[in-house]
Amino acid sequence: MAYFEITGVFPPVITPFHEDESVDYDSFAANLEKWNRTGLAGYLILGSNSETPYLTEEEKLGLVRLAKQHKAQDKLLMVGTGLESTEATVRLTNLAADAGADAALVLTPGFYGAAMGDDAQYAFFTEVADRSKIPVLLYNVPKFTHINLTPSVVSRLSRHPNIIGMKDSSGDIGRMTALMTEGLDSEFNLLVGTASVWYPALALGIRGGVMALCNCAPRECAEIQTLFDAGKYQEALELNKKMFPVNAAVTGAFGVPGLKYACDLVGYKGGCPRKPLLPLTQEKKDRLEQILKSSGLV
Amino acid sequence: MAYFEITGVFPPVITPFHEDESVDYDSFAANLEKWNRTGLAGYLILGSNSETPYLTEEEKLGLVRLAKQHKAQDKLLMVGTGLESTEATVRLTNLAADAGADAALVLTPGFYGAAMGDDAQYAFFTEVADRSKIPVLLYNVPKFTHINLTPSVVSRLSRHPNIIGMKDSSGDIGRMTALMTEGLDSEFNLLVGTASVWYPALALGIRGGVMALCNCAPRECAEIQTLFDAGKYQEALELNKKMFPVNAAVTGAFGVPGLKYACDLVGYKGGCPRKPLLPLTQEKKDRLEQILKSSGLV
Amino acid sequence: MAYFEITGVFPPVITPFHEDESVDYDSFAANLEKWNRTGLAGYLILGSNSETPYLTEEEKLGLVRLAKQHKAQDKLLMVGTGLESTEATVRLTNLAADAGADAALVLTPGFYGAAMGDDAQYAFFTEVADRSKIPVLLYNVPKFTHINLTPSVVSRLSRHPNIIGMKDSSGDIGRMTALMTEGLDSEFNLLVGTASVWYPALALGIRGGVMALCNCAPRECAEIQTLFDAGKYQEALELNKKMFPVNAAVTGAFGVPGLKYACDLVGYKGGCPRKPLLPLTQEKKDRLEQILKSSGLV
Amino acid sequence: MAYFEITGVFPPVITPFHEDESVDYDSFAANLEKWNRTGLAGYLILGSNSETPYLTEEEKLGLVRLAKQHKAQDKLLMVGTGLESTEATVRLTNLAADAGADAALVLTPGFYGAAMGDDAQYAFFTEVADRSKIPVLLYNVPKFTHINLTPSVVSRLSRHPNIIGMKDSSGDIGRMTALMTEGLDSEFNLLVGTASVWYPALALGIRGGVMALCNCAPRECAEIQTLFDAGKYQEALELNKKMFPVNAAVTGAFGVPGLKYACDLVGYKGGCPRKPLLPLTQEKKDRLEQILKSSGLV
Repeated sequence: MAYFEITGVFPPVITPFHEDESVDYDSFAANLEKWNRTGLAGYLILGSNSETPYLTEEEKLGLVRLAKQHKAQDKLLMVGTGLESTEATVRLTNLAADAGADAALVLTPGFYGAAMGDDAQYAFFTEVADRSKIPVLLYNVPKFTHINLTPSVVSRLSRHPNIIGMKDSSGDIGRMTALMTEGLDSEFNLLVGTASVWYPALALGIRGGVMALCNCAPRECAEIQTLFDAGKYQEALELNKKMFPVNAAVTGAFGVPGLKYACDLVGYKGGCPRKPLLPLTQEKKDRLEQILKSSGLV
Repeated sequence: MAYFEITGVFPPVITPFHEDESVDYDSFAANLEKWNRTGLAGYLILGSNSETPYLTEEEKLGLVRLAKQHKAQDKLLMVGTGLESTEATVRLTNLAADAGADAALVLTPGFYGAAMGDDAQYAFFTEVADRSKIPVLLYNVPKFTHINLTPSVVSRLSRHPNIIGMKDSSGDIGRMTALMTEGLDSEFNLLVGTASVWYPALALGIRGGVMALCNCAPRECAEIQTLFDAGKYQEALELNKKMFPVNAAVTGAFGVPGLKYACDLVGYKGGCPRKPLLPLTQEKKDRLEQILKSSGLV
Repeated sequence: MAYFEITGVFPPVITPFHEDESVDYDSFAANLEKWNRTGLAGYLILGSNSETPYLTEEEKLGLVRLAKQHKAQDKLLMVGTGLESTEATVRLTNLAADAGADAALVLTPGFYGAAMGDDAQYAFFTEVADRSKIPVLLYNVPKFTHINLTPSVVSRLSRHPNIIGMKDSSGDIGRMTALMTEGLDSEFNLLVGTASVWYPALALGIRGGVMALCNCAPRECAEIQTLFDAGKYQEALELNKKMFPVNAAVTGAFGVPGLKYACDLVGYKGGCPRKPLLPLTQEKKDRLEQILKSSGLV
Repeated sequence: MAYFEITGVFPPVITPFHEDESVDYDSFAANLEKWNRTGLAGYLILGSNSETPYLTEEEKLGLVRLAKQHKAQDKLLMVGTGLESTEATVRLTNLAADAGADAALVLTPGFYGAAMGDDAQYAFFTEVADRSKIPVLLYNVPKFTHINLTPSVVSRLSRHPNIIGMKDSSGDIGRMTALMTEGLDSEFNLLVGTASVWYPALALGIRGGVMALCNCAPRECAEIQTLFDAGKYQEALELNKKMFPVNAAVTGAFGVPGLKYACDLVGYKGGCPRKPLLPLTQEKKDRLEQILKSSGLV
């Protein structure tokens, strides 16, 4: 249970499948080997963009082990381990730890949304953090969970010795400021979860991002921060704007299937999603390719 | 793959737990034995109110087997088998069939909500129904999934030979009429999923309900239909109104923990929820008890 | 300040305009003369479907005076008089009373939505009712106002001697039951505000409706109630279902411009809306005409 | 019809009332005289925070004339002139122009929300801009109108020679970037409408803000920009964070009555709101005073 600082950019890595929908571990490893050379600070395995809700426990742990093996040594390995029940979450978190995870990113449970207010979330995360072998980060992504942790409960949880940060994917910069002014523990990594606001988040003082766009534009996501840190604000902002339509496409209009196709186009192994997600139609593929061309990624 | 008509009322049965949160199979069986004598038409095992997202596959199948064994012979056994991935849903559906399920109730997958429009839902349910050993019913519950199947896609799916109905828990009576006027297959059981509109649903011509309230007020839910069918509309309506505040309490304000406590109060075995759900505070228990007293259930 | 019972169906009457967008008072009067012979119980002038937010005070009062003059003597004249400020609402209510209104239908103020909770709505309606020369009905229409009065505040307001009812346009039948079980004053007219649930509302014991559909299908709306009251439930239900797609079209997909075009098609004077509302495209006109043909109205 | 650049900060000025709810023109003028000395770039009269929906036309024009008279000569005078109908909006816009307005800020009409999509908004703003004597700015404030102009329609409207900008009060920084990358006309002033994101907006390259907080913290709002422009980013950010809780209080939890009370506390003339808005309770006043003290404003 030791705090560490998290800076830089991380992809919530996509999970490639064979045509029969089985996990394509080789392509997964190949992607990591390639990403190792792009300036990423590490990886999030089993994030939302990893089609995690479609994976079995065996597949999940297989991916963690493989990531541990193929990531460059200096890269941080975060693993998404949130499930609906407290017990199952603790179990998977510790299995992921055994498989090589450096930290666990734990989704807010949300099926019984009306019952999952501050008190329930506080109790959930406290127990998970108490029983986890590795440091825990909160994962707030209202787009998928329809839960939005209040600044007040995040502030309380930030004081837990084994909770070291949060990925906030609300995309709401006002909320990020609210979190900061609510009184977070000084040892708490507030990470932004979507590239739509990567530059503004840097401007606010945020130092890390776990962003879908890092899958297909890792160098650009890293470069925005490098430019910012060098005081080249205008260049950083321009690069962020240039990537903005790509990000909107792969996180909004075209979703995970779009993100995987964008990876295919830039030289990573994306491939088709698992069902029930549908692959992109040819018309959508063409539109997405055009967007990547306009951005200079292709 | 044979259509059958579904009428009458069904509880989405609660899942009792021991104090250590392990499944209390004995109490589960005892509840069934008691419900067998109350006029219910059958059971839904592994519904939303069963805390299904918190159960392992082994627990799920254990509950189905036990239900098969303890239900009265003439009762229909529906089982909730929906999971996020198509493959996992097919697998669990057929395991449930082997364990004794008469029909599968399949939740709309919804984690990637923006990607799960009509086309994706149509493909998902068609494949599940194609590959299922038992008849399939759609399960539409926007409160939990944030997905609301369009009348148009329900109409298309109703024509599938192995899709025999839908539990609609939207609580939206206008929508029920929209579904009816959209052109459902004549062999399609439209079931209402919440007792808040049980009487109006009967008035619309709906013949069955799968309703949380049936757990703690099985006789009353059945009686409303009996009265309605006997032309005693005013009495049926009054009974529905009398149960309304109880239903609002156990599905709204107090949720699954409230439903389980209400079961305790009326003589069934409810007990505590699995975490992260919190048990009711004493103050809420008192309020709920008062509501049950006012309704005459206690 | 005298309570009276309100039963039967009322159109929130459309406001015809000349091509230059000035009010076409002659067509308005002609519509009333024609509606007088169709079984309606009265009229709502200046409702949501009357394009009221686009009318000047002078136009509003002109319409009320004309309605008073052209309505059959036995018809009740309700007038929509809600504005954002309390003072302006009181003023318009009493001007409408002077111009011949029998009762005022007062919209929930909603511009500062977050500030317009129960306390503010209670104070608003109490003051309006205290100072109004004529009885007041609450007008709850969340589709337009994004305000949904709680059953609790409606119950409290129902006890005011000069508040005699509510038009509830939520379309939510569960909510209607909640209102009834919350303890409304016995002298309170709960009216349904949308024909999508007219038959279920009758089944619940509701006795009146103020429904856009009454503009273009007045006889059918009245007939549903007549059949219901004669115990011909199946016929009433079938007629409600037959009208359902028309109602969906003129209140949903095509809005006020669609309602006016439907009026044109069945022999009333509809015409174009005032700007910024756009008239229907020809393609939409054709689709709407088809819907009216399918329903037998044309 | 001449474009001009708009930079700096503007309060959407509050409207003081006497105890009898009549407009307190003297206090309004006194506020302006005081604000003239605080670094504001100008004023927005008749904005959302001005309780405009509660004002008569006569009161509105009286306020504009008074503002023209009491504002320092170099201050820009923007006036909110949006109403629901196109004709009424054009009329009020030109009356405001005659009374001294330099530019009109026109709210998106939204009562018939479902009908007010891109096409209707495009036609509305185009006609208003065509017929307005003064330049027009779009006013996008989904919190109040439940309308959110798409980047695409804003881009199209930005090309109109008499539309010179937009106040965007969505508070959504991702959306601001989307607007910028959508291709706005080079002569278009994109102004931020809420101080919650004032610093991030500056970081994005936005040069002006029309923000409720400017009423009670004019110097601080101006200072944030001054610091930013001087390259003192850290100081600007810290000041923005310091003001954040105040802004949250006067735009969120406590609304317009809170904003007016905050003005009272810092030496401007706020007073009570017009009904149906309720004044703050003493408990809320105390909490708000505490927040202002913590921020150093009191």
